[in-house]
Amino acid sequence: MKKISVIGSTGSVGTQTLDVIMQHPEQFEIEGLAAGTNTDLFIEQVNQFRPKKASIGNKELANKISAHLPAEVELFYGEQGLIEVAAGTDAEIVVTAIVGSRGLPSTLAAIAEGKHIGLANKETLVTAGHLVTELARKKGVSLLPVDSEHSAIFQCLNGENFKEVEGITLTASGGSFRDFTREQLLNVTVEDALKHPNWSMGAKITIDSATMVNKGLEVIEAHWLFGLPYEQINVLLHPESIIHSFVEYRDGSVIAQLGTPDMHIPIQYALSYPNRLSSSSKRLSLAEIGRLNFREMDLERFPCLRLAYECGKIGGTATTVFNAANEIAVSRFLKREISFLQIENVIETVLSKHEAQLQPDLESIQAADEWAREVAASI
Amino acid sequence: MKKISVIGSTGSVGTQTLDVIMQHPEQFEIEGLAAGTNTDLFIEQVNQFRPKKASIGNKELANKISAHLPAEVELFYGEQGLIEVAAGTDAEIVVTAIVGSRGLPSTLAAIAEGKHIGLANKETLVTAGHLVTELARKKGVSLLPVDSEHSAIFQCLNGENFKEVEGITLTASGGSFRDFTREQLLNVTVEDALKHPNWSMGAKITIDSATMVNKGLEVIEAHWLFGLPYEQINVLLHPESIIHSFVEYRDGSVIAQLGTPDMHIPIQYALSYPNRLSSSSKRLSLAEIGRLNFREMDLERFPCLRLAYECGKIGGTATTVFNAANEIAVSRFLKREISFLQIENVIETVLSKHEAQLQPDLESIQAADEWAREVAASI
Repeated sequence: MKKISVIGSTGSVGTQTLDVIMQHPEQFEIEGLAAGTNTDLFIEQVNQFRPKKASIGNKELANKISAHLPAEVELFYGEQGLIEVAAGTDAEIVVTAIVGSRGLPSTLAAIAEGKHIGLANKETLVTAGHLVTELARKKGVSLLPVDSEHSAIFQCLNGENFKEVEGITLTASGGSFRDFTREQLLNVTVEDALKHPNWSMGAKITIDSATMVNKGLEVIEAHWLFGLPYEQINVLLHPESIIHSFVEYRDGSVIAQLGTPDMHIPIQYALSYPNRLSSSSKRLSLAEIGRLNFREMDLERFPCLRLAYECGKIGGTATTVFNAANEIAVSRFLKREISFLQIENVIETVLSKHEAQLQPDLESIQAADEWAREVAASI
Repeated sequence: MKKISVIGSTGSVGTQTLDVIMQHPEQFEIEGLAAGTNTDLFIEQVNQFRPKKASIGNKELANKISAHLPAEVELFYGEQGLIEVAAGTDAEIVVTAIVGSRGLPSTLAAIAEGKHIGLANKETLVTAGHLVTELARKKGVSLLPVDSEHSAIFQCLNGENFKEVEGITLTASGGSFRDFTREQLLNVTVEDALKHPNWSMGAKITIDSATMVNKGLEVIEAHWLFGLPYEQINVLLHPESIIHSFVEYRDGSVIAQLGTPDMHIPIQYALSYPNRLSSSSKRLSLAEIGRLNFREMDLERFPCLRLAYECGKIGGTATTVFNAANEIAVSRFLKREISFLQIENVIETVLSKHEAQLQPDLESIQAADEWAREVAASI
């Protein structure tokens, strides 16, 4: 029986993680659950899974829900609550399904306690990849990717010699606007942007897919997860999202992982690794799909991906600032303060004002993160 | 330094095997070479690779070429010569690149001597799968697939738990006539049939691709190589032959091997396994290819594949007879004695006259094989 904590249990990855756990009650047990503001769903989850520890966004919400929770569940809140749920239980695996760089402290705390990480919070590696991977190495902790692309790469490396890898390719659906020209992007609305062609995901990541920031974050995540230089990480436009990603070996052979666009599969693999458990997910039928399409990624059409590569190659706080500026820009777009194309302007402007610090410590990362947010909010 | 013997060195797989060995002189060394009737090329190969033992089709050919070979090369001929080259040297791996069921005795002899087999001669498993796999198990010998489809499956099983396999799918280009109706097949010529859309291969296998017999033989080969029941072996029409085959796992995940249609890659993998060596083969570019197509396999359009499944499920001498009848039918088609569509009639008629013997010994297999050839020649 593997014991699991989930940070961000009411979000898209969080609820699907609980689906997987429910489908395999003989394999998994919940130790801790943490959520932000969705109190109704959280009350339901805590009553169903009866974790030892639970945490909600802030003190007010904690006061509001505490009467509705089983008496034996210890309730926490805020950032300290995330750390309690991530690091303060007997969980073997902590699924970090929280969105944004606020997932970092609890992830580091969990690693410090020797817990394996089911990594869905890519910002953890984007903002502090060198600290996270170094601590994980020191503690002998596995970073098990939950993102479908990274899970694909991880699976394609099974049983292979990493030295024989020539490169990896992350596929990108292209998001809601993949067939739009730059001109057509001028007047797109929030509603348009939230219609992802293949995956049903949270609002932030759906916008990030449309700007290709998400793929940029994934490239940086892949750099840290697999220890590959950016020159060996490629992105390919693949509208159907059926080939989730692939690894190219030095003999010219390519190993790919494919599947239906169903996050339950990579989530379950992170939890069950190195085993594969049965699953009721819809089976892939290539005959039914009929046709898979591929196109070169166009970095002029998608400048945010170019920026991500540039920041990745600079390293240090550059990727922290890229991510923080984007988080604010997306939130301003969702509040209709700025247009879709202004998201990239905000990111580029903030980056142009930033002098990257290499090998930053956690404090410097947080300072750069805060600085970037302030600047991004004021543009 | 791995020592290699090649049975069938002047054929398509044989010459490509020697290409691979030439590209990695620090890895591989030739111990033995055997060929059929292409004496000019064989003389060249023997002079270049200087094997300890060489063998040619028959005594006359041996007399003809002996003066042209280095004095230190021991020259043999005929079936006994194949066995000498396969089993009578210090080779660690014997590549069985000979076409047809006459590859069986030398393959069994090599396995009996504990040599790993680079298996390109699929008829070995089709005619005597139970004997070959049992002997290989007993001798601790690996059957390393050279066929691109089986190499793909073999690679997709790397690092995985075989018990978690839900099924495998062999892809089929559809061969020269994939878009022809049954009516259009009535008048096709030998020349038409020899134009394979993707792969450059020998005549027999190119015809077998057009009739889908080749895929049938591959299904039977996969059954023996991977120990899977026929219900778990699927065939999918994939005109581009880029996805070479794939494995479906019980979690809904699919692992596929892809590449350009270049036999050097699977040949090299069989020789270098478990390592991957560098290769100058053209790299796969999915963006360049742009589009991959898939269609359900139609067993009414391709009745030979249906017959292969039926024979496979019956087992015993049924697959031997399927293969032998096809060898004769193809050779008669190439000699323009029968039409393209009569190939399947010949096979089906021979099968209808055959009472399969289960668990046959080598003698019974050879008797069934000879019987099938006689009947197929007389229809």
